[in-house]
Amino acid sequence: MAERLIVVGADAAGMSAASQARRRRDHRDLEILAFERGTHTSYSACGIPYWIAGLVEERDDLIARTPEQHRERNIDVRIGHTVVGVDLDRRAVTVREPRGGETTHEFDQLMVATGGEPVRPDWPGIDGRGVHGVQTLDDGEAVSASLRSRDAKRAVVIGGGYIGVEMAEALIRQGLEVTLVERAEQPMNTLDPDMGERVGEALKAFEVDVRMGVTVEGIELDGEGWARAVTTDAGEFPADVVVLGLGTQPGVTLAEEAGLPIGPSGGIVTDRRMRVPGHDGIWAAGDCVEVVHRVTGRPVAIPLGTHANKQGRVAGINLGGGYATFPGVLGTAVTKVCDLEIARTGLREAEAEEAGFAVVSAVIESHTVAGYYPGADTVTVKLVAERGTGRLLGGQIVGGNGAAKRIDVVAVALWNHMTVDEMTGLDLGYAPPFSPVWDPVLVAARAASDAVHG
Amino acid sequence: MAERLIVVGADAAGMSAASQARRRRDHRDLEILAFERGTHTSYSACGIPYWIAGLVEERDDLIARTPEQHRERNIDVRIGHTVVGVDLDRRAVTVREPRGGETTHEFDQLMVATGGEPVRPDWPGIDGRGVHGVQTLDDGEAVSASLRSRDAKRAVVIGGGYIGVEMAEALIRQGLEVTLVERAEQPMNTLDPDMGERVGEALKAFEVDVRMGVTVEGIELDGEGWARAVTTDAGEFPADVVVLGLGTQPGVTLAEEAGLPIGPSGGIVTDRRMRVPGHDGIWAAGDCVEVVHRVTGRPVAIPLGTHANKQGRVAGINLGGGYATFPGVLGTAVTKVCDLEIARTGLREAEAEEAGFAVVSAVIESHTVAGYYPGADTVTVKLVAERGTGRLLGGQIVGGNGAAKRIDVVAVALWNHMTVDEMTGLDLGYAPPFSPVWDPVLVAARAASDAVHG
Repeated sequence: MAERLIVVGADAAGMSAASQARRRRDHRDLEILAFERGTHTSYSACGIPYWIAGLVEERDDLIARTPEQHRERNIDVRIGHTVVGVDLDRRAVTVREPRGGETTHEFDQLMVATGGEPVRPDWPGIDGRGVHGVQTLDDGEAVSASLRSRDAKRAVVIGGGYIGVEMAEALIRQGLEVTLVERAEQPMNTLDPDMGERVGEALKAFEVDVRMGVTVEGIELDGEGWARAVTTDAGEFPADVVVLGLGTQPGVTLAEEAGLPIGPSGGIVTDRRMRVPGHDGIWAAGDCVEVVHRVTGRPVAIPLGTHANKQGRVAGINLGGGYATFPGVLGTAVTKVCDLEIARTGLREAEAEEAGFAVVSAVIESHTVAGYYPGADTVTVKLVAERGTGRLLGGQIVGGNGAAKRIDVVAVALWNHMTVDEMTGLDLGYAPPFSPVWDPVLVAARAASDAVHG
Repeated sequence: MAERLIVVGADAAGMSAASQARRRRDHRDLEILAFERGTHTSYSACGIPYWIAGLVEERDDLIARTPEQHRERNIDVRIGHTVVGVDLDRRAVTVREPRGGETTHEFDQLMVATGGEPVRPDWPGIDGRGVHGVQTLDDGEAVSASLRSRDAKRAVVIGGGYIGVEMAEALIRQGLEVTLVERAEQPMNTLDPDMGERVGEALKAFEVDVRMGVTVEGIELDGEGWARAVTTDAGEFPADVVVLGLGTQPGVTLAEEAGLPIGPSGGIVTDRRMRVPGHDGIWAAGDCVEVVHRVTGRPVAIPLGTHANKQGRVAGINLGGGYATFPGVLGTAVTKVCDLEIARTGLREAEAEEAGFAVVSAVIESHTVAGYYPGADTVTVKLVAERGTGRLLGGQIVGGNGAAKRIDVVAVALWNHMTVDEMTGLDLGYAPPFSPVWDPVLVAARAASDAVHG
């Protein structure tokens, strides 16, 4: 008789796992049943701001594979189905059906891919109409509907992280007046302050009203329950639409209630094969888990689509009888805001110090391509290294076209425990349309090496 | 009394060395005298095709530092001075002065940076007017002068390597009819044939008349000694201008005559500090030397500006009393031909096999950015790995905007002896404007890993 795999959450991690397992085991050997509380599967959540901005035409362009397409491959996806309980002893999940009522489904293998839960402070008015997170495609549709139905003129984006700055840009592109409020002194707190400052400048140049160091107190609603303004310790900001970009935390309620181990970072604990230790046949992957940070060696929960896809694939290979391991993360992330490319990997200064490293840093300015070549733009590269040893600990890049993906060089160097000294010798590609003869990353490595040697 | 450093050849390697030495030792401690047979110093030879194409406006844009600028920093550069002999016993060089006559100059330290010599077959007519190599800025000026003075309509480019394909594009951009003739069956023999074929297609789409498998027999000249046609075993190709893109070999005549050691690849032998072994105070760097290939462990002479700059810097740091080593090369190279980006690093299949590796390869097609994002273009990535171990041996990339510099990820992985298995876990940057969620390099690593495991 076939084993049954139940997948909870049918997005990046869950469906990568299901697909890999299916590639290796056919439906006579492994039945796969996936429950999704939303209405879409396997879509690019990272693409939502670009769709709202109008850069991506159709919502469906963001969907890599629909429930129907999964079903054609013998993966039984049920949308609108919320898993409300997991009984590890009975090896069964309880599911709230879309039309009400609950059903129970037994499993042999369970893949927990419950994703991240958006941070939603307990502010008055946060549940008002026109107040939206942007985690799921359903959220994106809700934002889009609010914009249309209200003929919205003014938006307030709360939070200056990736989603916040991307949504600020998207709403400007849709012709709204946009205010970005953030508690910290600069946007993008995944960067060091000196680099984050440049993001703030780019947002201002794009006519986003950037308000840093501002604490939100609540959202004022009108008589019909629609958002009217965001109230803060720096006054009131009118808003027809409010976007919450306050980040996410691992979505572990279900796992926690079932008794699965939750680690210090708040994510479900997994081993290198994405198994939940101590629970045979239970797997977890994606924004709901914690994994090892390769620089600190500590567990972290970093919600990124790349990690979710890789972890899901690893789990699926193992579920399918193969062997694969997830080697940990560096937290590499890139984005583009108002023509400014932004990238980071590893530890920023404060993170490195908090992890016990003594650090030296170097910041250099260079060009994205040969200075004399048409379209040459500036790029700023910062490298953080360990004092004494010169071990690379992290890097950050902001700049024009061609800046961001240079972080991958820093990421692979970091992955391999290189020192900034060693990096100066790296044999990178050069031609005038692509780079100065010394790639900006190498210029930064030279500067960091000089800094290490005092 | 100050030591005297004589530099032979005042371009990338020579002047990088001189500049680094000067940074560390002032003119009272180290006199620096540089002889250059051409008329320019410290320029971007790689930029010449783009200047001829009209993409770079001014010739002087290619010059990073003029002789005057070097002299202001107490580096005595003498252009038009050809070093014709080195006497290692007397520790002196003999120099042919620009107005005739020879002078002798003693040195304490000697930096040999004589660059590469273009390959010039002994064809009838090769010394004709309108027949040009494109190694130096003086060569570039000569091409430019020929184009103007002849009102040239038709060009033949001989050789389908970097310079050949870049010059073919440049001349098309200048409105000429261009024929590219190449002995091999496809252009870019630094790539495997399956990848090189795509370069040929791009050239054809750009209206270059590409003639592969053609052996040149000579260049026919008219009554005034100007090029009229290139004669080949496949007939005659009319040409007002002929460009030679046949590559270079290490320029070691001077070194060889002086008795310096020449290695199996034809370059001057150096140690990791760029010293010539057995010859105290003699240094060499740039296209005239051989260095270790990090994958094969064998000596190679690969003429690339990136290597020359790095080697010159290493020599200069050591000359200045510091400590630096040159760690070897991977042969990473990128270029752009007719909107097709081209990149390679490490060993191609034939090179790997010749070096004794049994190989498996994987070729994948993906997108430069998320498939749904505006401007998404195709990219083809090939990885070559060792059979059994899965050790990465090399990579090649061709594709649209954003393709080429992805080779740097492959280069850093190669530098660190990664296997293609390990590469599948790399934490690279992802956002829709920059990459699919699985970067094309990771897709290739997955395919290569599958190929390794059969």
